[in-house]
Parts: sequence; structure tokens; C-alpha cells
Amino acid sequence: MNFGSDNQSGVSAAVLQGIVDASSGNAGSYSNDEWTGKAVKKLCEIFETDLDAFFVSTGTAANCLALSAMVQPWNSILCHSQAHIAVDELSAPELFTGGARLVLMGDDGAKLTTDLLRTTLSRLPTDRPHNQIPGVLSLTQCTESGMVYSVAEVSALSFIAHEAQMYVHMDGARFSNALVSLGCSPADITWRAGVDVLCLGSSKNGALALEAVIFFNRALAQDFDLRRKRAGHLVSKGRLFGSQMCAWLSDNHWLKLASKANAAAKQLEQKLSRYSAVQIAWPVEANEVFAIIPQTLFSYLKTHGVRLSDWYPNSMPKEMPIGENHLPVRFVTSFSTEQSEIEGLSNLLGDFFKS
Amino acid sequence: MNFGSDNQSGVSAAVLQGIVDASSGNAGSYSNDEWTGKAVKKLCEIFETDLDAFFVSTGTAANCLALSAMVQPWNSILCHSQAHIAVDELSAPELFTGGARLVLMGDDGAKLTTDLLRTTLSRLPTDRPHNQIPGVLSLTQCTESGMVYSVAEVSALSFIAHEAQMYVHMDGARFSNALVSLGCSPADITWRAGVDVLCLGSSKNGALALEAVIFFNRALAQDFDLRRKRAGHLVSKGRLFGSQMCAWLSDNHWLKLASKANAAAKQLEQKLSRYSAVQIAWPVEANEVFAIIPQTLFSYLKTHGVRLSDWYPNSMPKEMPIGENHLPVRFVTSFSTEQSEIEGLSNLLGDFFKS
Amino acid sequence: MNFGSDNQSGVSAAVLQGIVDASSGNAGSYSNDEWTGKAVKKLCEIFETDLDAFFVSTGTAANCLALSAMVQPWNSILCHSQAHIAVDELSAPELFTGGARLVLMGDDGAKLTTDLLRTTLSRLPTDRPHNQIPGVLSLTQCTESGMVYSVAEVSALSFIAHEAQMYVHMDGARFSNALVSLGCSPADITWRAGVDVLCLGSSKNGALALEAVIFFNRALAQDFDLRRKRAGHLVSKGRLFGSQMCAWLSDNHWLKLASKANAAAKQLEQKLSRYSAVQIAWPVEANEVFAIIPQTLFSYLKTHGVRLSDWYPNSMPKEMPIGENHLPVRFVTSFSTEQSEIEGLSNLLGDFFKS
Amino acid sequence: MNFGSDNQSGVSAAVLQGIVDASSGNAGSYSNDEWTGKAVKKLCEIFETDLDAFFVSTGTAANCLALSAMVQPWNSILCHSQAHIAVDELSAPELFTGGARLVLMGDDGAKLTTDLLRTTLSRLPTDRPHNQIPGVLSLTQCTESGMVYSVAEVSALSFIAHEAQMYVHMDGARFSNALVSLGCSPADITWRAGVDVLCLGSSKNGALALEAVIFFNRALAQDFDLRRKRAGHLVSKGRLFGSQMCAWLSDNHWLKLASKANAAAKQLEQKLSRYSAVQIAWPVEANEVFAIIPQTLFSYLKTHGVRLSDWYPNSMPKEMPIGENHLPVRFVTSFSTEQSEIEGLSNLLGDFFKS
Repeated sequence: MNFGSDNQSGVSAAVLQGIVDASSGNAGSYSNDEWTGKAVKKLCEIFETDLDAFFVSTGTAANCLALSAMVQPWNSILCHSQAHIAVDELSAPELFTGGARLVLMGDDGAKLTTDLLRTTLSRLPTDRPHNQIPGVLSLTQCTESGMVYSVAEVSALSFIAHEAQMYVHMDGARFSNALVSLGCSPADITWRAGVDVLCLGSSKNGALALEAVIFFNRALAQDFDLRRKRAGHLVSKGRLFGSQMCAWLSDNHWLKLASKANAAAKQLEQKLSRYSAVQIAWPVEANEVFAIIPQTLFSYLKTHGVRLSDWYPNSMPKEMPIGENHLPVRFVTSFSTEQSEIEGLSNLLGDFFKS
Repeated sequence: MNFGSDNQSGVSAAVLQGIVDASSGNAGSYSNDEWTGKAVKKLCEIFETDLDAFFVSTGTAANCLALSAMVQPWNSILCHSQAHIAVDELSAPELFTGGARLVLMGDDGAKLTTDLLRTTLSRLPTDRPHNQIPGVLSLTQCTESGMVYSVAEVSALSFIAHEAQMYVHMDGARFSNALVSLGCSPADITWRAGVDVLCLGSSKNGALALEAVIFFNRALAQDFDLRRKRAGHLVSKGRLFGSQMCAWLSDNHWLKLASKANAAAKQLEQKLSRYSAVQIAWPVEANEVFAIIPQTLFSYLKTHGVRLSDWYPNSMPKEMPIGENHLPVRFVTSFSTEQSEIEGLSNLLGDFFKS
Repeated sequence: MNFGSDNQSGVSAAVLQGIVDASSGNAGSYSNDEWTGKAVKKLCEIFETDLDAFFVSTGTAANCLALSAMVQPWNSILCHSQAHIAVDELSAPELFTGGARLVLMGDDGAKLTTDLLRTTLSRLPTDRPHNQIPGVLSLTQCTESGMVYSVAEVSALSFIAHEAQMYVHMDGARFSNALVSLGCSPADITWRAGVDVLCLGSSKNGALALEAVIFFNRALAQDFDLRRKRAGHLVSKGRLFGSQMCAWLSDNHWLKLASKANAAAKQLEQKLSRYSAVQIAWPVEANEVFAIIPQTLFSYLKTHGVRLSDWYPNSMPKEMPIGENHLPVRFVTSFSTEQSEIEGLSNLLGDFFKS
Repeated sequence: MNFGSDNQSGVSAAVLQGIVDASSGNAGSYSNDEWTGKAVKKLCEIFETDLDAFFVSTGTAANCLALSAMVQPWNSILCHSQAHIAVDELSAPELFTGGARLVLMGDDGAKLTTDLLRTTLSRLPTDRPHNQIPGVLSLTQCTESGMVYSVAEVSALSFIAHEAQMYVHMDGARFSNALVSLGCSPADITWRAGVDVLCLGSSKNGALALEAVIFFNRALAQDFDLRRKRAGHLVSKGRLFGSQMCAWLSDNHWLKLASKANAAAKQLEQKLSRYSAVQIAWPVEANEVFAIIPQTLFSYLKTHGVRLSDWYPNSMPKEMPIGENHLPVRFVTSFSTEQSEIEGLSNLLGDFFKS
């Protein structure tokens, strides 16, 4: 019963077959292979626009290389205080951008709001050359609380950002989960809503190692080949990424995988919310369930083979105090979550609360 | 007929099967998977010593992350002027090391010699804090001319480097080709000969994307997990690398692949050296053949479907002037070079020179 | 009537004479002059310990070079959210440290407390290699609110920092003002209280351009000559700094200058606190007075030739809400503040409130 | 008898008076003082064009900040192998540019030639994104051999550089010495000859600490205020620089100082060239004399109180082999070289060779 993280899941059969098919025979190196070309073309179709796309092996590389193309070292990057770039990527943002600074907003795990963004911008000192100049707004889709920004929300935040001469970056490590949750078109929730650069994550949704940096604002892509090379992220056998992306995008495979993951999370939520001792922290809109549970339950589940993570207390909703002997936790589902895992967890919950 | 580069070759069947086998089911993320653990253990056995090993996706990342663990920004890195780190990795050495400087030695493609190293060291200004302090000697095995450093040569160069308070780095992008050429043990040509850190390349010899940074000098590995993460090179599904390395090292698979590649180069050399209009530039000791050929032959081969590269004129031996209408070229063989490719090339040569 | 900033003041006659005396004749370059040597020796006497000291031209250079000697790029630097390094030094901390991250504590202008430090440390995620490792606690003496850390406070904060494997940095841009306010010995408020590195500012207290980076923890100074040179901060005529420091330290000149500045601030406070419409925001412990005043008063003073700055609303005490049509302001005094300036301001206040 | 370096000289009386005059009273901080404004205006007049100018305290800062405004980290900077930026500024070029690479040309101390530049450019590999893209040509005026580029030479080199999409940087640490040697206008030898950015050094010619970064290509100056601040080079009391520059430029003071220095070097050359055992290495065109002398003479002079430096053997002219028991040396004169120093040296030479 693995609800630890979607990056602990394996590779979907279709994506693996894509790798296998591309692995024999010669092919142009450094992205000059047929699969990479096809994959970029497919992205253009899916996003209904001309775009530049580059593939790398990790989300940290995708995010931080993207940011480096959007800021100068004297700019700041505004993001949620729980953002992956703020919490989980060590000092990679600083390395890649040459020292741009993150400005953190919000102190619990909910989404960024236009109010929060406006207030933050109004409070930032603006005395050149002493103060950073805001350069990028970075949104995470889904958010670190497993919630999803609507088209209207992204549009409103982007509008403010652009008005303030900032670019908009979207960390889409779980973009496909958000997309199927929203049910809108990929274009509507990205460039049509003002997103300049999207980091589209596949590794958490069925790929082996694949992240795409997608430039809707193509002027920003001008030097990206150099940035990627300079950071050691230009793999010699580019077919590794091209083949995965081709397979992942074919026949809506990526969306089907995400739908499976999201459905599993919904089921999980239902199982959990049967018990009054369990509080669901945030609306379950994608493939993550955050909850506050008794510590004894946490131990019980661990002991009985459930993988899940305890989570940051200060990321929980302000209006939901963490009771004594209680613990915030995170359950993550993925395309490969089995019905039996859900049932197994459900049974453990029943056993625990019965006693 | 592909003699363009060994990074245009595909993946060996055994390595691919390794990836396939590891791709289903859950596994710990961020290198906490069983394959990564096994791979490191296997490396310890093969190199007959305790070592620290980290896997990344590109040779540039391997080399430059390794160097970053060996120098401060005010150190210099001594290497051949044709070294991959000097010629083919953009400014990655500078990015990763925070600005250490490469000091280039030698002006044609042969190997570094103790004389050259001693002379270079004796001429470097040493006025602290105005001048860089030599920090690393970087050797490439095989060299950029397809030649191989002997155990005695590596030992002698390392001795001088260590005497001068420098560490020794080995860029082993084609280490396995060198190893089978030497016929010695992996330990003898690395740590026993004074190498502190080896970048062991697999991508050019049958893997899909796999480079290992191997610390024989384990004190240098202390912060490497942080360095790798900070550069976005810690992949979430570490099994990608672990599984390849396990398969690659099993049953001497890596050595068999390299032997095939080397043997093909030897055959190629024989075919080429039949013709007096073709000059073999350097002894063929591994899987590359450098030659000076008529420009018309180059065009003829290209037209008839042969992939090969023209090469840097100033990398050719000083005593072998490039005749008018002649061109330096590079042929590379790999584990997947077919006998039919060699014969095909041989026939083309015959046809060309007959006419 | 200049209460704008102490860096708008001129040079004290004694310091200027020091520069003049050192300006003729030949002298060793790059700090190899007699004044630099004497100045370091004098600092050893004053701080009653062996120390390493280096002189640079700006506070930003002093702070950020010092920090670069105390952290790795994957460390974090904990400081108050109003700290000069956080608010007024652009991205210099990131440039010099290679990308270490500032962690900001506190949201109004008061001092750091042990509670705040402990809470912050307890909340920082510690999942290596994904999270920064706390490396330095940076204290500002005087604080950005013109207050002074006591020996007990510095000691208690340092104790926690050292316990958490962090070094302690003190930004002493106004250290001399703090020192005369405390009335203790320089040693007591620095190394005896746990400070590893002090940036001792002179530019705001009578010098022309002079900041000293003083290493009590001498192991940290090991590469500082290289760090300073690499950042272009090794001036060729080092006598510029050496001569100023000799004059500044002679006959307690630095302390006399600071006492004058502090006394002027006290007077100013008295003048201001006569009026109920003026709220003194923080205890006046050195040479700055922070107050909340009517906006009309601010305009009146400006119009009548008073230089002062409006200040950050969110730096004011939480328990002192800023009334409508009111404004937080900062008055700074210096060694050169004239009695007539105080009286002039006093008269303006009288005139304003009379009407 | 100090012929060690012009940075060991003191401050000219007029420049010192400028500092003294500006040191009392309040003034705007961070370059917002009257002297800085006047100095920039004066530079516009002298260079007969609109320009942007920024003042810093060291030549390393001037050069490397200037270069950082002219290149990206994936660019290269072409310069002579003996250039100050290559030999005497540690890794500052890399720090400030974020890792751009120096490409060194020439192996003895003479000037760069168009032939050398063209050959170098033609040999640089151009495989994007693997190779650096040439971004800047950096010239040193006077050269490291004390020679002067003519207007025609600078123009021809700049033409090639611009044709190759590179900017032209001039390290003018001894620009005033070159200028009086050439007898042309400042405009003719800089922007009219294609120079985009000039680093104008004053510290070696009568100032205390003063270097100007002058942008003739004003588009490149756009972010320079931020670059300077980020590197800790924005001094709070900008009058330090402004006042020196005003005094230095007034009444052709800078040119008079340089003329004195150059004349002293000419005298020195005459004294030295009387003796056949002394070989003058390069034409004496400014304020430096390079010579090859007997080692016994070197010791004799040192013992008798002469300061001079031994110099790099490989910087000497190829056609002038260094005889056994001989040594290359450098004599530097300055504005403050006394007639008595020349005569003193002359007498020592006489005594030495008589015996």
C-alpha cells in the first residue's frame, strides 16, 4: 500500500514500450533524433500553438533552468512559501539564476490569491539599486496542497504579474492531474491564461525520467539550448526523452494515467472521511489527500505496511488546529495505485477504529 | 555505416532488459532503490576498494560535478587543450566550480606528458592572492586522440600532481575502451595509479544515459549529494541509473561491449591503411581512428551514406602536415558497429581509389 | 538639518588627517603598507585577542564576503527580515556565497529573540539533500530599529546557533554606536559572547570609506585574501584603509564620535516626545530615532529643509497601529550632527504644533 | 629608488586636495553627490560624447564588472595571454561574468595583431551549444609590455571584433600614459576606434583609489548600477571617487602626471641602454621599461635600495633569448619618480659596470 509519493511508482507499460522501441539502432545525438522532433510537434498540437520545448531529467532542472531564462540575478521570484522551488530544490534556483532571490508568500498550504500577491508587491521595497526587482511569479499546478488553480485564478494572477512587468512560470510537476481535474484544454490553463513558461512533469505520472520546459513566450527560449548544456542537462541520447514523451502523449495516455490517479485519491478521501477522528485538510482536487490523523493511527498504518508521509504542521489550514496527539499527513496516489491498495487501507482504517 | 560517434549508438539488449525489469512496481525514490545500492556494491567489487559512487545522466554533469568537489573557485584545473571539459562542455566547468579556471596544456592531440606537466607548473605565476592555485589535474582516458594512458603514465602524472598539492580527476567517458585495451585491472589504472575521482562513462558503450562519479578519495565525496541535488541532477526514479549499471557491469558485459568496439576500430584501421593517400594520425588503441584523407574521399563517403566527422586541423600530429585538399577526420566505432558497416566502408574505399 | 542617514555625513577631521598623512611617498601595495599592519595590531589590542582583519570599502562587501567564508551554497543564513543583508544589499549575499539562502525571521523591527530563533530552527525542514542546512546566524548591531543587543542577548543567541552547528556573524555597521551605548568592552559583546566574525563599520561614523571584516574564529579567515581579491575588493593602495583605521581607533576617537551621535539622538528623542501626536516607535538606544508622525508634519519638515526618511510600515511595533494620515519615519544622527540642527528641528516642531 | 610599481606611489597633491575639500559637510550618498555628477560631465567633455560612467575602487572590479555587462556565461573573452584579466585578477572574471571563459592569444609580451586575432577566431570551434561563443575582445592600453596600441591598430582590431559580433573592451589601467604617448584625442583612441567600454585607471597615475568604467556603447550600461551594487562596489560616500576624478581631470592634471611618468621612463631607458650587458626588451612607449639584465646586476641593485621586479621569462621577445645568468626585469616609473631616483640608479649602474 504505497501512498508515499507518485515518484515511487514505476513506468507505465506504454511509456516503457516507447523507450524499448527507440533503444535499438543509431540515432542523432543531443536531441537531433526523430522522437524529440515528433514530441515537440505533438506538444504544439496539444497546446494549440507554436512553442519551444526542451526535455530534461528532473523537475528541479526544469524549474530552475526555466527560471534562469526569465530573470536576472537582481530579480526576485515570487512564489508560495510551500512551493517546491522554495522547499525541495536546495539552492538550485540560486545556482541556475546566478543568485536571484525567492520571495515567499503565504504561510499555510492554500493557493496564492490575488490579494496576497498584490499585498506582497505593494510591500516590497523598490529603491534601485538596493532592492531586488520582481521578475517572475511562479505558480505550482497542482499546488503543494493538492489543489488546482482554475483558469480564472491563473488569469487573474498572471494579469497582476504582467502588469508588474513580471513573467509567469508554472511548475507543472502534477500538471496532468490538474488538467483532468479542470477538464479544460491545455491551452486554456496555460498560455491563454497568461503563463509564459510551463514545466510539464511526466516523471510523477508514468514516465521514467522526463520533464519538459515549454516556452509559450518564445523570446525567452532564445538561449535555452546554451543554458541546458551549461548545466550538464543535454543528454547525448536524446531519444531517452523523445521516446517517452511521444508515448506519453499518444492517445491521451497522459490524461488517462492522471485520471486514474485522481480517481484513486477521491476514493481514498471517501474512505478516510468516514471517521470523525480524521480531518481532511484541503479539498481533494487531484491525486493527493492531506489529512490530520491521530498519531496512533499513523503508527498503526506504518506498522501494517502503508507508506505515507507526515507533513509540515504549519502547512495545515489555520482554522484547523492540530489536536494533541494528532499529526498532519499526506497520501499520494498515482496511475499505478491498485484498487487493492485502497481496499487494504480501508480495511486497516476499519480495524483501527473498531478497536 | 555510422562512424559518427558512439553516442549515436543504441542501447545494448542486456542494459535495456535491465531498465525494463526495473520499471514496474514501486521503489524508493532519489537513489533509495535496490538497484542503485547493488550497483554501488558491484563497483566496489570491480574496483577492489571501498568507494563512493553517484550516478548522473550526462558526461558533462559527471565531470563538472566531480571537479566542483575537488576545487575552490580560486583554483585552476590543468588539462589538455583538447580535453572534453575544455572543448565540449560549454562553460559547465565554470558554473559548477563557481569559476575555477582551466589551464590548457599541449597543442596537438597527443597525450599529456610529465614533461609538459612539469613545464606548465613551473611557468604558472604563484603570487597569492593574484594568481590561481593549481587544484586538479584532469586526464582523459581514452584521450581525445583515441589513445590510452598506461598505468605507468597515469602514475607518473599523478605523482607530480599530488606533489604539487593537486588532486587527479579522470574523465573516463571511454574508460571501458581503455581498460580492455590495457588489459589491466580497473584498480590498477585508477586509484592504485593515483586517481582520486573517476567519471566512468557508460552512455557511449551500451547504456541509454548513465555516467558514474566514483570517489576513491572518499573525503572529497562528503558534500556530493548536495552538489548533485543543487544542480538538478538527482533524478526521482533513481532506478533508471541503478538498473542500467547493474546490467552493464554484470558478467563483464561492459568489457565485452568495449572489446567489440575496439576490435571494429582495429579492422577499420587495417582497411584504411591499405591506401597511401590515407594517413592514420595516431596509434589506434581503442575505438577511434583519426586519419588525414583527401577531401574528395570525404565527400564521396558522405554521399554514399557514411557518417563520420571532419576534425580539428590543429589536433593532428605536428610531424604530419595536412596536405592541400586533404582533411583530418574521425571514425568512431561502438559495440553496435556491424561487420557489414566495416565491409561497406571497405568497398567504398576500394571503389574510390580504383577510379 | 540632516537626519537622513549617517552615511551622508562627512569625514572626521582626525580621520581625514590620517588619509592626508599617508598619501605622500611610496608604500607597499595590496595591504603591504605600514598603516594596514598597525591597524590590525590595534584591533587585536582593542578586542583583546589575536584576530584576522581585512579592510574593504563597503558594508555590503564586508558582510557578504564574511558570509561567503562561513557558508557553503547549500547552507542557509538566518537573519531578521529587516536585516541590511536581507533588504539593502540586492543579491550580493547570493553572489558572494554562490547561492546560499537567507531565511528571514520576525516581521516587525524589533530584535531577534531566542524564542524566535528556536521556533524558526524547529520548523525548518531537514531532509538532506533537499533542504538547506542552517549555516550562519547573522545579527545586526545596532538593529535595524536602532536598538542594541545586550551581552546576554548575543550570548544566548550565539549559544543556540553554535549548538545547531551554525556560525555567528555580526553586521556591525553601527557597532561603535552600540558599544558606547552598552558601555562594555569590545571583547565582551563580540567573541566572548560567541561572535565568530564581526563586520565593523566605520563609514557611518566618521570614516570616508572603511569597513573591517574581523575574524575571531581565525580558521574561517583561511581563504579570505583570495575571496577579497576575487571580488575585486583588494585595493592597490591599501594605505587608504589602513590610515583611516589607525586614525579612527586612536585615542578612542571612534568611541567619541559614536557618543556624540548617540547623544544627539537622545536629545532628538526628547524634543520629539514632547508632542503627543508623535509616537516614538522603539527605545532610542543608539543614533536612530524611529517615530510615527502625522503626514502633514512630515511634509512640513521636508519643506523646511529637514532631511529624514519615511520608513517601512510593517517594521513598526505590532502594538502601535499607524493611525490614518500618519507615517513611520526614521531620524538618524551622526558624529557631525550640530546642536543647531537639533534646535532647528525643535523649533520647527514647536511651530508646527502651535499652529 | 622605487621602480617597483606605479601603484606604490602616493597621491598627487591636487587629487589629495580634492578629497580634502569634499570631506566635510553632508552630501548625498551612493553617488548622488555633486562631485560624482561633475566628474561624469567632465568625462563627457573630454571624450567628446555622451557616455555613462561609474566609479569603483579597483582595476579588477572595473574590468570584471565591465566584462559582466558585455557577455553571457556562455561567451568567451579573447585577450592576450599576458593580460591583467588573465594573469592578475584571480578568478574575478569568472565570478563577475557568471563563468564566461577567457581565450588566451599570443605567447610573448608583444601586442595583439589582426593576424593573431583572425587566426584565433578561425580556429575556435563553433558547434552550438557545445562551444563558447566569442563575446568580447579585450585590449590592454598600454599593453603588459609597456607598449601602446595606435589608433590604426585599435581600429583594425575592433573592426574584426565587431564583424564577429563581439564587443571591444579596453583595460586602460595605464590609459593616460598611452594617451600622452600617442598625442591623440581621448575620443580618437577609444570610441572612434571602436571601443565599446573603457576602464580608465587613475590609481596608478596619482589617485588614491579610483577607476572609471566608461560606456561609450550606452546600451551596455543599462543594468550596471545593479551589477555594481550586487558586487558590493557601490560606496556609500560616493564623493570619495567623484572628488578625485574632478581634481584628476582638471587642468589636464591627469595628462601632466602621465607625461612626467613617461618622461622618466625614457630617461631610464637611456641610462640602461648605455651598457651592452643590458638588453631593452620592448620599445619604451609609456612608463615601463622591460629589460634583460645580468642576475648579478639585479642583486646589486636590490642590495642598494632599488625596487624593481623580475619578470616572466616567457613574456620576453622570442628573438631575444635570455642568456645564462641573465634575468628579465621590469622598471616602472610614475608621476612621482624623482630625478634623484633616476640619477641614483644611473650611478649604481655606472659603479656596477666599472668594476
